Amino acid sequence: MSKKIAVLGAGSWGSVLANLLVENGHDVALWTHDPKQIPEINEQHTNAHYLGDFKFHEALHATADLKEAVDGADVILFVVPTNAVRSVAEQVKPLLEASGSKPIIAHAAKGLERGSKKRVSQVLEDVLPDALHSGIVVISGPSHAEDVATKDITTLAAASKSLAAATAIQKLFMNDYFRLYTNQDVIGVELGAALKNVIAIGAGALHGLGYGDNTKAALMTRGLAEITRLGVKLGADPMTFIGLSGVGDLIVTCTSVHSRNWQAGNGLGQGQTVKEVLDNMGMVVEGYSTAKVVHELAGDLGVEMPISSAIYHVLYEDAPIKEVIADLMKRAGKPEFDFHIEK
Amino acid sequence: MSKKIAVLGAGSWGSVLANLLVENGHDVALWTHDPKQIPEINEQHTNAHYLGDFKFHEALHATADLKEAVDGADVILFVVPTNAVRSVAEQVKPLLEASGSKPIIAHAAKGLERGSKKRVSQVLEDVLPDALHSGIVVISGPSHAEDVATKDITTLAAASKSLAAATAIQKLFMNDYFRLYTNQDVIGVELGAALKNVIAIGAGALHGLGYGDNTKAALMTRGLAEITRLGVKLGADPMTFIGLSGVGDLIVTCTSVHSRNWQAGNGLGQGQTVKEVLDNMGMVVEGYSTAKVVHELAGDLGVEMPISSAIYHVLYEDAPIKEVIADLMKRAGKPEFDFHIEK
Repeated sequence: MSKKIAVLGAGSWGSVLANLLVENGHDVALWTHDPKQIPEINEQHTNAHYLGDFKFHEALHATADLKEAVDGADVILFVVPTNAVRSVAEQVKPLLEASGSKPIIAHAAKGLERGSKKRVSQVLEDVLPDALHSGIVVISGPSHAEDVATKDITTLAAASKSLAAATAIQKLFMNDYFRLYTNQDVIGVELGAALKNVIAIGAGALHGLGYGDNTKAALMTRGLAEITRLGVKLGADPMTFIGLSGVGDLIVTCTSVHSRNWQAGNGLGQGQTVKEVLDNMGMVVEGYSTAKVVHELAGDLGVEMPISSAIYHVLYEDAPIKEVIADLMKRAGKPEFDFHIEK
Repeated sequence: MSKKIAVLGAGSWGSVLANLLVENGHDVALWTHDPKQIPEINEQHTNAHYLGDFKFHEALHATADLKEAVDGADVILFVVPTNAVRSVAEQVKPLLEASGSKPIIAHAAKGLERGSKKRVSQVLEDVLPDALHSGIVVISGPSHAEDVATKDITTLAAASKSLAAATAIQKLFMNDYFRLYTNQDVIGVELGAALKNVIAIGAGALHGLGYGDNTKAALMTRGLAEITRLGVKLGADPMTFIGLSGVGDLIVTCTSVHSRNWQAGNGLGQGQTVKEVLDNMGMVVEGYSTAKVVHELAGDLGVEMPISSAIYHVLYEDAPIKEVIADLMKRAGKPEFDFHIEK
């Protein structure tokens, strides 16, 4: 059945998800904070800064009027950068209060908020009316926007404390090239999505330095071990990290040249400074800001995260990458897992 | 402290591990069943069929005399193809019985035995004296032999029911580019190592067909979910599959052109027949024989393994790859995990 959906955020991922929902027969409003994007999307059906010459379905409608986008929406999907979620939610809140409507709130942001160190669903809960909290859904998985645009087969997790809400979102998106799997571990799915961006910077750096497949797999696997260690401490189900938002997203982000986080790391590995890398990117590198939050969280909680901390030292304290790698290799021999599932 | 080690099997992985142990200061005998390999290894210090022009340490000594190799060995490391383990172990057994020595038995084979459907450590237990069983160690992780030869940073799991045995093997191998992590879940480490080769054939096939990063990550992640499902049924700790022998080895095998299993799949995706692919390879493709064992095990145990079964149908029943992929995408929407950790 056709639904009315507001997609908030017209970057590459928001635009592609909105377009897919239109193709699936839904009535979609794509909201952007930047009115300059509107004529291009609505008249030329492109979003060239993010997606090159990819053509949207002609029925995809963009607007800069948030009220127009969310009024009567069955679903509101936040796809803005992590550190913009709070301010956009604060603009949505009075509109929902005025209309009394109770849409499903979903998001596809991949980060942790600076300062508060909160997951995105926690930020949404801070701001939006209580009645909407239990149904918040996060969608996340291995999914370059560019490849979804060209209908590459793609799989995501849809996680919510409410299985009904997760299943409703699953149904909106499913088609012959896009599959969602429901999951009830919101904490794990959000942490997997956010923390893997830090590891991806490391994977790019190893590539830039000329390391091979074994070393990148070592970084990814031991990175996942420390992500899981932090996740378990924060209440996540460790199994979630073996899934689409964990392993899956880690693989695609760490092995693909499409990834901005990987690109940033690759630049560092090739000898660029952090400032040069960030200036050259032209899009948000979520892993840069997440690295700082993760480093702080690991310290607050007393969780050992040697790889994420090493990447933090490179990004924020000018630590030389090669020394950081040599230090990691000098650590004493360890058991593979020093945390265990409580039985 | 220097140890006497017998490495059985002079393929690419056995040769490289033996060479690394020599570099670490141990006294190593590299046994091969093929006397024709001996002069090349001992005089030219190469093994060109497997490793091109890579030069071994001059102290690496190859022999075709099994008694010479195992006599007085502190450690015997099996690195022969899975389906050769039983017959080699049967040759080792009387030598150990005659000498009464009690070496640590280790292996680095990645498969399940045809017919018996057993893991490699089970095969070793079938044959070797009881007193050695509790200390059997499996080493496995993301590790192309070619990249270890060039000292790419590499990490492996060393798993044994005996932590003392795993730690002893860890110490033998550790150096500034090679790290081992101990683990006590032999079942999980062996299954991860074996079953990922089947998924790697699928990843190669997707590449050969022109699919992109999202699809390969989907295959790997959902492949890992079904590997974990079977593993849990067979008594493995699900956490093991998030580790070096699970995710780690899956990543390196599914994303690298060095992998024979990936190469076999890539050939299929490009339109070669199964026979052409196997004839062209010139080395053992463990995933081909493992696919049959996994398909049988899944049937015996009633475990749903749609991806591994699809690959079995392509390899053994001439199923057209594109139809198999379309069928997988037509499955109903599912929860991400339908198995749970018993609490």
